[in-house]
Amino acid sequence: MITPQTLKGFRDFLPYEARKRNDVIKIIQSIFETFGFDPLETPALEYASTLLGKYGEETEKLLYLFEDNGGRQVGLRYDQTVPLARVISQYNDALPRPFKRYQIQPVWRAENTQKGRFREFLQCDIDTIGISSLVADAEIIICVLQVAHALKLPSPTVMINDRTVFDSLKLSKTEIIILDKLDKIGKDAVIELLNKEGLDGKEIFDRIQTSEKTERLCKIFTLLSDAGYTEQKDFQFDPFLARGLDYYTSTIFELKDSSYPAGSLAGGGRYDTLISRFLGKDIPAVGVAFGFDRIMDALEHLGRLQTTPTATRVLVTIFSPAMLKDSFMIAQTLRRYHIGTEIYLDPEAKLEKQLKYADKKHIPYAIIQGTEEKDRRIIQLKDMKKQTQHQMTLEDCIKFLTAHEHTKG
Amino acid sequence: MITPQTLKGFRDFLPYEARKRNDVIKIIQSIFETFGFDPLETPALEYASTLLGKYGEETEKLLYLFEDNGGRQVGLRYDQTVPLARVISQYNDALPRPFKRYQIQPVWRAENTQKGRFREFLQCDIDTIGISSLVADAEIIICVLQVAHALKLPSPTVMINDRTVFDSLKLSKTEIIILDKLDKIGKDAVIELLNKEGLDGKEIFDRIQTSEKTERLCKIFTLLSDAGYTEQKDFQFDPFLARGLDYYTSTIFELKDSSYPAGSLAGGGRYDTLISRFLGKDIPAVGVAFGFDRIMDALEHLGRLQTTPTATRVLVTIFSPAMLKDSFMIAQTLRRYHIGTEIYLDPEAKLEKQLKYADKKHIPYAIIQGTEEKDRRIIQLKDMKKQTQHQMTLEDCIKFLTAHEHTKG
Repeated sequence: MITPQTLKGFRDFLPYEARKRNDVIKIIQSIFETFGFDPLETPALEYASTLLGKYGEETEKLLYLFEDNGGRQVGLRYDQTVPLARVISQYNDALPRPFKRYQIQPVWRAENTQKGRFREFLQCDIDTIGISSLVADAEIIICVLQVAHALKLPSPTVMINDRTVFDSLKLSKTEIIILDKLDKIGKDAVIELLNKEGLDGKEIFDRIQTSEKTERLCKIFTLLSDAGYTEQKDFQFDPFLARGLDYYTSTIFELKDSSYPAGSLAGGGRYDTLISRFLGKDIPAVGVAFGFDRIMDALEHLGRLQTTPTATRVLVTIFSPAMLKDSFMIAQTLRRYHIGTEIYLDPEAKLEKQLKYADKKHIPYAIIQGTEEKDRRIIQLKDMKKQTQHQMTLEDCIKFLTAHEHTKG
Repeated sequence: MITPQTLKGFRDFLPYEARKRNDVIKIIQSIFETFGFDPLETPALEYASTLLGKYGEETEKLLYLFEDNGGRQVGLRYDQTVPLARVISQYNDALPRPFKRYQIQPVWRAENTQKGRFREFLQCDIDTIGISSLVADAEIIICVLQVAHALKLPSPTVMINDRTVFDSLKLSKTEIIILDKLDKIGKDAVIELLNKEGLDGKEIFDRIQTSEKTERLCKIFTLLSDAGYTEQKDFQFDPFLARGLDYYTSTIFELKDSSYPAGSLAGGGRYDTLISRFLGKDIPAVGVAFGFDRIMDALEHLGRLQTTPTATRVLVTIFSPAMLKDSFMIAQTLRRYHIGTEIYLDPEAKLEKQLKYADKKHIPYAIIQGTEEKDRRIIQLKDMKKQTQHQMTLEDCIKFLTAHEHTKG
């Protein structure tokens, strides 16, 4: 027989994990919508020609490419930016300008899993296409901060820089990537690496350290303050912030939280020339991608996830096969009040076994009704955690469970 | 330049479509959870060996199989039942028994697109694994009815049969598939096809027509009545219901709605031997799959979708570049009240252009604040549809928009 297993770098999400993820997605989605971003979905498979020549040679090795049954060269979605660019050029005038969309879908990358990377993971992107105004940049940074606060991150800060700062220093892409390592390797190592490139590392370091915000950044900072955010605390100028990718043209930013030193939780910026690679003409664009797995990791570590292991609030037990009908009707009544309800599915099972099931599934309450309770028109509500039991009418039980539901979150 | 296009059988969902789909998914999901089904997610890619030998030869031709960069034979998810069976055997004791899960993910099938079929489509499944009691069958049928009512289908009926009815008539798989065509081709054609198989078509037809519910079905029907549903109206015995698939072992059912004759909206049944194809031992199971595209089609035709084209309720215009800050603060205030708000992103644009954008995006309201309004601490709220405009304080505007939000649904 075949050993049941998932492919390396791919994950099953069992109910508790899937529920946590759904809760976080819901929060992110609701903030995106509050800012006027509407959803977009694109297919998992694209023509290989749509994907090739867009990411650079090194990255293309990570694409899942294959020939389909009809002999077409196809590939799995690698990110949400290239499909967005395709959509922009395919539907063009049918879309409003600016086009503001969010996209929350899995992407596939044949990454080296030894580095702890996944080959299937969720991306959460927002992008504003077709407008060069810095108001769009400011809006996206504010949206990032609102998401961070909605997720109850303890001390989120958006680090901000402008790529044009490096232009004036005439730094190459390799040198910019060295600067981006400052957080990880420290000042001395950065200077040494720059020296190795044949530059005066110390001089460059000092010049960057003392460089000032561009005029554009100053205006963005004013808007962020206008929106009620505080410089240094909520957002900061970071002249060393570089971002690995080479397609950014001006504003760049990353979301960090001092309580989570493992890395940035979101990153983005303005990329006014990327879409031209598909369309033949420049279309200004600014966006951000949230690292969903890292956000889940951070929230888990910080104990910020309130998700319960199951949506079921109560298990209706079956006292005896003859009482199946009564239990069934109780369950139906509870469901009409939108209370997550299970009925134990084997009417022959002993009560003890039924309660064990509730325990294993972390269902917080169980309802028991024997013949005596039925005659008295009451039920027993058992609190599975406290192991206490109270008798009450079904109406009072519904009141209790719906009230409890509201205080839950 | 490359023509931007999607692969045949694959679809983009632009914001309005994606929003409609999200709304319907949310309704389905909430009913699933009310019945104690929790979410499960499995990877898009599985080992080919997990997928092969499970669906039958004809179906395997429709699998998206390929060799990945590491030389592994892999395939895209074809349905959610095989991955579920893998999960059941992989995590076994870590899962509660019965294991009740829902799964709402895309699947990929290299179908003939000329038949109007898609190659990527969403499946919405619930299954109860590990229990043979008919209570589980009844519960799933009730859940189907609750979903139908939550979606406001006008006259949903679940057609129910028991596969063992055909066993007693000693009908082969081919003959069962002929019976399944009754709805489409009519009584005479069915009898003729049966005759061609060397049977007495008329006799078989009559025997089926007069066949009675099995004992198991009688008990299920009693439970459905106990739960408040009415035989004939909400559920019906249909001795001709056969279901194409060959793995069903007893109860089978389909959701139909008389207002949507194009086909069934959900189908399922009990399949007590299917999982043994993976596990080596029989594990009882019962489940249902909703045809999401057909449901969307039915709701669209019936005009039952209430979704608005955008989540944005109001566009905050910018009267002049000098008033950007004021507009920005208004937008921020509205968002704090969870009102979907856009600010027009180009402060240089004429008011007319800004309002045109609101129109194109079907944003229902626009806020205008000129210098005079600012001095008087009021705003103008423009109803984009009625083309009326009222002046009010921002506080009253918030009250109006949040009240309207609540009546929306």
